[in-house]
Amino acid sequence: MSSLRRALRVPPAPVRLSGLDPRSTPLVPGDKERTREVMRVDAERLAELQQRLYAEGVGGGRRRVLLVLQGMDTSGKGGVVKHVVGAMEPHGVQVVSFGRPTPEELRHSFLWRVRKALPGPGKVGVFDRSHYEDVLVGRVRQLAAPEVIERRYREITRFERQLVADDVTVVKVFLHLSPWEQKQRLLARLDDSTKRWKFDPSDVDERALWPEYQEAYATAMERTDTDTTPWYVVPADRKWYRNWAVGRLLLETLTALQPRLPEPTWDVDEQRDRLVEEQPLSG
Amino acid sequence: MSSLRRALRVPPAPVRLSGLDPRSTPLVPGDKERTREVMRVDAERLAELQQRLYAEGVGGGRRRVLLVLQGMDTSGKGGVVKHVVGAMEPHGVQVVSFGRPTPEELRHSFLWRVRKALPGPGKVGVFDRSHYEDVLVGRVRQLAAPEVIERRYREITRFERQLVADDVTVVKVFLHLSPWEQKQRLLARLDDSTKRWKFDPSDVDERALWPEYQEAYATAMERTDTDTTPWYVVPADRKWYRNWAVGRLLLETLTALQPRLPEPTWDVDEQRDRLVEEQPLSG
Repeated sequence: MSSLRRALRVPPAPVRLSGLDPRSTPLVPGDKERTREVMRVDAERLAELQQRLYAEGVGGGRRRVLLVLQGMDTSGKGGVVKHVVGAMEPHGVQVVSFGRPTPEELRHSFLWRVRKALPGPGKVGVFDRSHYEDVLVGRVRQLAAPEVIERRYREITRFERQLVADDVTVVKVFLHLSPWEQKQRLLARLDDSTKRWKFDPSDVDERALWPEYQEAYATAMERTDTDTTPWYVVPADRKWYRNWAVGRLLLETLTALQPRLPEPTWDVDEQRDRLVEEQPLSG
Repeated sequence: MSSLRRALRVPPAPVRLSGLDPRSTPLVPGDKERTREVMRVDAERLAELQQRLYAEGVGGGRRRVLLVLQGMDTSGKGGVVKHVVGAMEPHGVQVVSFGRPTPEELRHSFLWRVRKALPGPGKVGVFDRSHYEDVLVGRVRQLAAPEVIERRYREITRFERQLVADDVTVVKVFLHLSPWEQKQRLLARLDDSTKRWKFDPSDVDERALWPEYQEAYATAMERTDTDTTPWYVVPADRKWYRNWAVGRLLLETLTALQPRLPEPTWDVDEQRDRLVEEQPLSG
């Protein structure tokens, strides 16, 4: 069952993203139609496991999951949230988007806003962008000195190690898109009046720095990938593969957790008797 | 279009819940199957309007929606979250459950934790239980003196008036369940080992206070129903009617808001040219 996690795990340093094909489809269960079918079945199993994790939390369990989504504009972070995360029950799922930091956020450590957004026990938290922006755009746009960026990798590693100690299962996903596919998607946004609001001219500016961003992603993964806080590189040029793959990574992760329904601390028969034998209620 | 909102609006004081049938199905579009079909269509329109509201927020709009769900145990707050709220995109939807207040929450005003959980601009917030618990269980269980409860109705009214001034559209739903149906649902929970964790023996204790709770709900609605912060009484004995009705109330509300996609502040053709004419990217 853990095979997709093995197949998509970021390779050991030095990471060369140019050697990983954004159009590839590792371990795909079939063609587009078949993959979508499999994804529907996976989604039901995922929703059931998520409910069990939620129940475990209600019963006092501390475990939770954090899915970190990173990738270039149009790589499909929103699509994953809609199709994969949307298949789970809103109860117990918490999506947080991290945009440009506010003035208040800038007055604190870059991890401040992230700590406040962590999922509670029993929950599945999803970060659409995350603390990694501070070593991605932060590095490419030189928003911080190189030694500050270097320190941040270590701070992230320490932070995530603490999360693991706090029973958070961390799943980090890089949606690996090709620049050619991004161009098509940006043009499509421009041409669709109902999607145009998602376009930002700065997306085109960032695009000019594509190689620098790829380098920053590769370095971030090299520095922060560990066996307990792994990075997965999900080829993202094909939306149907991307959705299936992220769903399957979550499914494998939750299956390995084996969330347990809490045992009742009361007697089932006694409670049933109380209900059956109660006095008639007015009202 | 606003007809279900008219049909389910709580009647003027004095509110007599015993006169409203929990098995009734006002304005139902057909039988169970047909209603579920209609609901699927409604859900798509709802998701589209929610996306527009979200886009409006991205474009700087301040409007948002707050759905408050109240009702006795097993009345279906969780079911509404799953079936109605779950039909919208997780982006832009924020579900908050209010349980028994923590020690920290008890040190603050009863509105403190609620203020922290309000939806941001462009979002649809959902409260599964809410500040109303403090005039429901608070009243029935005498957790506060009668004059404190009286003051809370006024504080709630003032608080919600402020929300409206802050561009929050408030939709308050009371899921109206019969005690007979509740008994069936509690027994079903006990008998299903995968649902047993949802059962709490205190649910049976609360049940013995059914008339007092109905009275507390009626009074709360009388004191806090206004044209801009309306209460709706949704008959909840039939799950398929309940889900359709809450979805339709939201749909009517969002339709009336007419959320607008933001106009681009940049020139579409110019951005298209930038993309088409760019230098080849390495990477």
